[in-house]
Amino acid sequence: MFLTRTEYDRGVNTFSPEGRLFQVEYAIEAIKLGSTAIGLKTKEGVVLAVEKRITSPLLEPSSVEKIMEIDEHIGCAMSGLIADARTLVEHARVETQNHRFSYGEPMTVESTTQALCDLALRFGEGDEESMSRPFGVSLLIAGSDENGPSLYYTDPSGTFWQCNAKAIGSGSEGADSSLQEQYNKDLTLQEAETIALSILKQVMEEKVTPNNVDIARVAPTYHLYTPSEVEAVINRL
Amino acid sequence: MFLTRTEYDRGVNTFSPEGRLFQVEYAIEAIKLGSTAIGLKTKEGVVLAVEKRITSPLLEPSSVEKIMEIDEHIGCAMSGLIADARTLVEHARVETQNHRFSYGEPMTVESTTQALCDLALRFGEGDEESMSRPFGVSLLIAGSDENGPSLYYTDPSGTFWQCNAKAIGSGSEGADSSLQEQYNKDLTLQEAETIALSILKQVMEEKVTPNNVDIARVAPTYHLYTPSEVEAVINRL
Amino acid sequence: MFLTRTEYDRGVNTFSPEGRLFQVEYAIEAIKLGSTAIGLKTKEGVVLAVEKRITSPLLEPSSVEKIMEIDEHIGCAMSGLIADARTLVEHARVETQNHRFSYGEPMTVESTTQALCDLALRFGEGDEESMSRPFGVSLLIAGSDENGPSLYYTDPSGTFWQCNAKAIGSGSEGADSSLQEQYNKDLTLQEAETIALSILKQVMEEKVTPNNVDIARVAPTYHLYTPSEVEAVINRL
Amino acid sequence: MFLTRTEYDRGVNTFSPEGRLFQVEYAIEAIKLGSTAIGLKTKEGVVLAVEKRITSPLLEPSSVEKIMEIDEHIGCAMSGLIADARTLVEHARVETQNHRFSYGEPMTVESTTQALCDLALRFGEGDEESMSRPFGVSLLIAGSDENGPSLYYTDPSGTFWQCNAKAIGSGSEGADSSLQEQYNKDLTLQEAETIALSILKQVMEEKVTPNNVDIARVAPTYHLYTPSEVEAVINRL
Amino acid sequence: MFLTRTEYDRGVNTFSPEGRLFQVEYAIEAIKLGSTAIGLKTKEGVVLAVEKRITSPLLEPSSVEKIMEIDEHIGCAMSGLIADARTLVEHARVETQNHRFSYGEPMTVESTTQALCDLALRFGEGDEESMSRPFGVSLLIAGSDENGPSLYYTDPSGTFWQCNAKAIGSGSEGADSSLQEQYNKDLTLQEAETIALSILKQVMEEKVTPNNVDIARVAPTYHLYTPSEVEAVINRL
Amino acid sequence: MFLTRTEYDRGVNTFSPEGRLFQVEYAIEAIKLGSTAIGLKTKEGVVLAVEKRITSPLLEPSSVEKIMEIDEHIGCAMSGLIADARTLVEHARVETQNHRFSYGEPMTVESTTQALCDLALRFGEGDEESMSRPFGVSLLIAGSDENGPSLYYTDPSGTFWQCNAKAIGSGSEGADSSLQEQYNKDLTLQEAETIALSILKQVMEEKVTPNNVDIARVAPTYHLYTPSEVEAVINRL
Amino acid sequence: MFLTRTEYDRGVNTFSPEGRLFQVEYAIEAIKLGSTAIGLKTKEGVVLAVEKRITSPLLEPSSVEKIMEIDEHIGCAMSGLIADARTLVEHARVETQNHRFSYGEPMTVESTTQALCDLALRFGEGDEESMSRPFGVSLLIAGSDENGPSLYYTDPSGTFWQCNAKAIGSGSEGADSSLQEQYNKDLTLQEAETIALSILKQVMEEKVTPNNVDIARVAPTYHLYTPSEVEAVINRL
Repeated sequence: MFLTRTEYDRGVNTFSPEGRLFQVEYAIEAIKLGSTAIGLKTKEGVVLAVEKRITSPLLEPSSVEKIMEIDEHIGCAMSGLIADARTLVEHARVETQNHRFSYGEPMTVESTTQALCDLALRFGEGDEESMSRPFGVSLLIAGSDENGPSLYYTDPSGTFWQCNAKAIGSGSEGADSSLQEQYNKDLTLQEAETIALSILKQVMEEKVTPNNVDIARVAPTYHLYTPSEVEAVINRL
Repeated sequence: MFLTRTEYDRGVNTFSPEGRLFQVEYAIEAIKLGSTAIGLKTKEGVVLAVEKRITSPLLEPSSVEKIMEIDEHIGCAMSGLIADARTLVEHARVETQNHRFSYGEPMTVESTTQALCDLALRFGEGDEESMSRPFGVSLLIAGSDENGPSLYYTDPSGTFWQCNAKAIGSGSEGADSSLQEQYNKDLTLQEAETIALSILKQVMEEKVTPNNVDIARVAPTYHLYTPSEVEAVINRL
Repeated sequence: MFLTRTEYDRGVNTFSPEGRLFQVEYAIEAIKLGSTAIGLKTKEGVVLAVEKRITSPLLEPSSVEKIMEIDEHIGCAMSGLIADARTLVEHARVETQNHRFSYGEPMTVESTTQALCDLALRFGEGDEESMSRPFGVSLLIAGSDENGPSLYYTDPSGTFWQCNAKAIGSGSEGADSSLQEQYNKDLTLQEAETIALSILKQVMEEKVTPNNVDIARVAPTYHLYTPSEVEAVINRL
Repeated sequence: MFLTRTEYDRGVNTFSPEGRLFQVEYAIEAIKLGSTAIGLKTKEGVVLAVEKRITSPLLEPSSVEKIMEIDEHIGCAMSGLIADARTLVEHARVETQNHRFSYGEPMTVESTTQALCDLALRFGEGDEESMSRPFGVSLLIAGSDENGPSLYYTDPSGTFWQCNAKAIGSGSEGADSSLQEQYNKDLTLQEAETIALSILKQVMEEKVTPNNVDIARVAPTYHLYTPSEVEAVINRL
Repeated sequence: MFLTRTEYDRGVNTFSPEGRLFQVEYAIEAIKLGSTAIGLKTKEGVVLAVEKRITSPLLEPSSVEKIMEIDEHIGCAMSGLIADARTLVEHARVETQNHRFSYGEPMTVESTTQALCDLALRFGEGDEESMSRPFGVSLLIAGSDENGPSLYYTDPSGTFWQCNAKAIGSGSEGADSSLQEQYNKDLTLQEAETIALSILKQVMEEKVTPNNVDIARVAPTYHLYTPSEVEAVINRL
Repeated sequence: MFLTRTEYDRGVNTFSPEGRLFQVEYAIEAIKLGSTAIGLKTKEGVVLAVEKRITSPLLEPSSVEKIMEIDEHIGCAMSGLIADARTLVEHARVETQNHRFSYGEPMTVESTTQALCDLALRFGEGDEESMSRPFGVSLLIAGSDENGPSLYYTDPSGTFWQCNAKAIGSGSEGADSSLQEQYNKDLTLQEAETIALSILKQVMEEKVTPNNVDIARVAPTYHLYTPSEVEAVINRL
Repeated sequence: MFLTRTEYDRGVNTFSPEGRLFQVEYAIEAIKLGSTAIGLKTKEGVVLAVEKRITSPLLEPSSVEKIMEIDEHIGCAMSGLIADARTLVEHARVETQNHRFSYGEPMTVESTTQALCDLALRFGEGDEESMSRPFGVSLLIAGSDENGPSLYYTDPSGTFWQCNAKAIGSGSEGADSSLQEQYNKDLTLQEAETIALSILKQVMEEKVTPNNVDIARVAPTYHLYTPSEVEAVINRL
């Protein structure tokens, strides 16, 4: 009696008869085309690891940024449309700086995540800062605040969840299974690094090198690994 | 002589020949996809109980918030699109704070509900705060004010009703029948907790644990149960 | 030579070749889905009576408001989309308060009705307060001013008429016939109450109780009957 | 080679290949659905007479206003969408009051008519006061100023003409023929009353009574006939 | 390979594959439905003559204005949608008055024409004064300034040309041929009157009377002929 | 696999699958319907020559302006929609005057051309001065500044090129070939006049007369040739 | 089950079911129609070389600008829609000048690239400076700052990458392969010039001359080669 889904799936804010918003679901598909990213929370801090697709040997690997700093105590890994991610990260950077300026203390990781998602939710609303379509990106937000280390996961609908470990991107299905098998709350940061990279290795088609992966930690401050630090983790596998 | 419904069901504010607004009806469908939430009013106060769908063991259960505080005397349980619910709750929080600031007293539960519904009703109107589609969420608003405890139920059309007990979400049909059988006006708060959780147990596919349900009461102030308090209620079943 | 009506019936402000505005006509259909409401004017004052559909025994009957006060000398009964009615009533309340403040006297019933209809007419105009579709509601406006008691009837097109008696909603056709038979200008207020309720009884599927009907009078001030006052009228039938 | 008309007739401001604006033509059709109104100019003043469709004996005939005062020297009869007519009349009332205030003298009948038509022409332009569709109403504007009595006729396109006599509405075709036969410039006001009502009688399906017709004159000031004055004219037929 | 024209002809500002703007061309068609108007320039001044379609003997001929004064040294004749023409003329009147006020001298005929066309060109642009469709009217603008008499012709695209003689409206094709035969630069004003009216007579279906034509001259000031002056010209034919 | 071009060619800013903007290409077609214009740069200055289509002997040739002055050191010839060209020229005039006022020196020819193209590029952007469609006009901009004489060519996409010689309009293809054969950098201004007019003569269907061509030079100031100066050039052919 | 791509490829911000934004992909196609441009980074500086399509011998080669200066330490080569590129370059020029004014030091190459891409990303958002469609242009941005020489590559999605060498435009595929073969990090600037031009020579259909290629270097300041400098590089091939 209803039309097929194809009648409801182009308006950014049109409900289908079953109550679904297809443009959001399609934006989520954009992430399944993206490179894989993994996050793990330990008591010592949070580890993020991402695959970087280096399509040409003439590309400067360090300019393919899939992990970015938001504030000194918060970083994030992304999968999906990179230009969309930059907009969200830039928004979060302004929010955290304003918070420090107004209150003289760092913004909590949850508030920062909420601020990101408020922007992501308002697609199609036509106001100044919002987009006319859903943001085609998922983020793994790693941070450390007065409540200790934490890891958040956001999707294009503007929803977020706190996790112990999570994978996003094209290899996320296999990676999530491996994470459930290997994760426990008592991992050291070093063990987390090893797990993250060994799982990434499984889902990547190419050999892992310091050129095609990035690793970062927030423990308790953000640090993006140097090529030699990445090399050291690779050697531990 | 008329077209089938499919010709009228994509404009957010288009009446069908029978006078129906289908996008609102479809948004109501979004709630039937949501997790179940239950509210019961007693003379001692109001109890809210919700199912939390924990899709992965690596998800932090406490970050799946299906019950939220609006003001110290008002809380709400939600079913449907969580990001939409956050927007409504945030709006209500600002309204109640403004009321306290302007009048030096808490906002009544009915006025708070009305304020929420005013925002919900104005979808598609293109003004600053409103959405371009109906909010895909139902709320159970529990509160306590000078008129004693009260429980309100809102739907995506911006309509609200006061209830003694009400269930929303995917299991609401069965849960509502059970509530009609078991509810009476002389329940104690503790009896209400037990009824709410036992009904939730019936409609949930998984075993009830402190991880996959949340309980809160407003009696007369909002209190979200700790895992051990939830445990205690589970043990009484 | 012309298209069928279905080509003209979705634009809110598109004339069909015969000069009809179908979205307004469809909004009028929305009212035929609504609960029945009845108004009668007598020399002593105006009586309003409405059916309340109590879909669940756990619903608080008093929260299903189908009769609302606009000012102390004006009340209204509604049928159709309740959330739309609230917007109109809220608008009328502001208008009547402003009038009292500016002129130190109550607004006449006709001016109040005109103000309501001005808002109702401007659907689709994109300005601040107006809706992007017709209001899906009819009102019976009962009032008393320097010209004595009066009863107005409004429809979604923004048109209004003054009546001696009028029924709206799903049972309006039968109720209007009964009103024409039983109405005369010399009815007492008490007789009007009895007629209103006896006609309502005919068109309602359920037994009439103080829970599922509301009665109000403006004589010359607005008064919503208490359950026991309603009980008394029921007992007179 | 061209499409049929149905491809050009829904855009409010789309020319068809022959240079026609169909939405304006359809709005003119709306008037053919309306009740009949007649105007006659004499040297002594102008007479307006309208049919009132009293759909129910419980309707207050005096609240069905098809003739309205604009200023003390100008009145108008209308056919078509009554709510649209009210907007135009209200606009004209403001204009004539402003004129009196600014210049200390009454606005001429032609300027008042021009002001009405300026508003009517601007449909679809999206500015503050204008409508998003043509006004579905025709007016007969009767007035008296320094140039003596005058009668104007306006249509939904914003065009106006000065006439000696004119009929609008569903019975206008037959009524116009009768007017051409019976009109001459030397009619007295009383003769004009009789002619107007006798023609109205021919096109009405019901018996003429003081309840279902209204008569007004501007000679030189606006006066709406009382029921007994209407009765007197009926008796002269 | 291209679609037929019907795919490009409804957007007001859509080019067809051949680079044509069909809505402008259709607006030009609107003028071919209009009554005929003729202008002739002589050394003594400019003559304008128009056909007036008096659809009913009860219509006041003088209220069918097809020739209007813009300023004391400029007048215009029109064909097409009269309400559109009024908007353009009103705009030109304001411009010429502003010019007199600012510079203490009359606006030249060319500048006035340019100002009219600037407004006509901006259709579909959504700003304050412009229309959302092309103006469906052509004008013959007659004037006299420091450069002597001049005659301009404008069309719905906002283009204008200076002419010695020109006809517009439904009879323009035949009338233009006759003008080319009969025009020479040494005509007296009286000869021009005679030629204009004799050509108008050929293209009109009815007998020419002072009621169904208007004549005006700008020589060097605007003067609309009285019925007896028109009669005098008719008698010269 | 792709749709035919006809699916992408009506949105003013829609890319086709091959990356083409068809509305711009169609606007370029509008120019191929226009009259021919030719420009030649010499060391002594720049010559512009245009065909004027005089559709009726009653049209005043001097009012068909296809060459216009922008500033005393810049002029331009146009082909396509004349009303669009006027808008661009008017914009350029304001820009050059503002430049003189702000900097006390003339604007360079390139900056003037750039300013024109900035406006042309912004079609469809909805801001104050821009059009909602591409400008359907090409310009040949002739000027002289501190860098000596220069000739620019602009198209509807907002792109411009500097040329030694260039033809636009319906005869541009043949004219461009002739220009390539006959042009050399050492031409005198008089030789350039002769070449321009002899090429124009080839592509025109009618005999060349001072009435149906215009010639202008910028050497170093703008001068539009009088009929007798044009006559002199014709006699040299 | 899904529609073919042709249903999702015209909305500028509509996701297809697989999460793709086709209008961005089509804009990328526009670049494949463009002329080829090549960039190489060496330790001594960056070289840019572009093909210029000189469609007519009468075109002034220097006016076909495919390499432009942004600031004295940054230049860029472009391929695709030139008018779009000008808008981006103009934006970057303002940003770099503002930076110098505000901070007294040059903007870094990465920040400049980011600023360009922020503008490119916001297509379809309807704000002041952004376009209603993706910018149909790719840029190779060459610069030198405190981090030494750097080369960036941007595409219509608003994404950018840092490269050692990169080709864009119609010949980019072949050129990129050649670059991978011939590039090494120890190239001198002179060797880079030779490689760039020899690769350009391979992909161009015409013989390379100083007229149809442009070369520029940033080492460490921007310099566009004179025809004789280009000649010298050609002679080295």
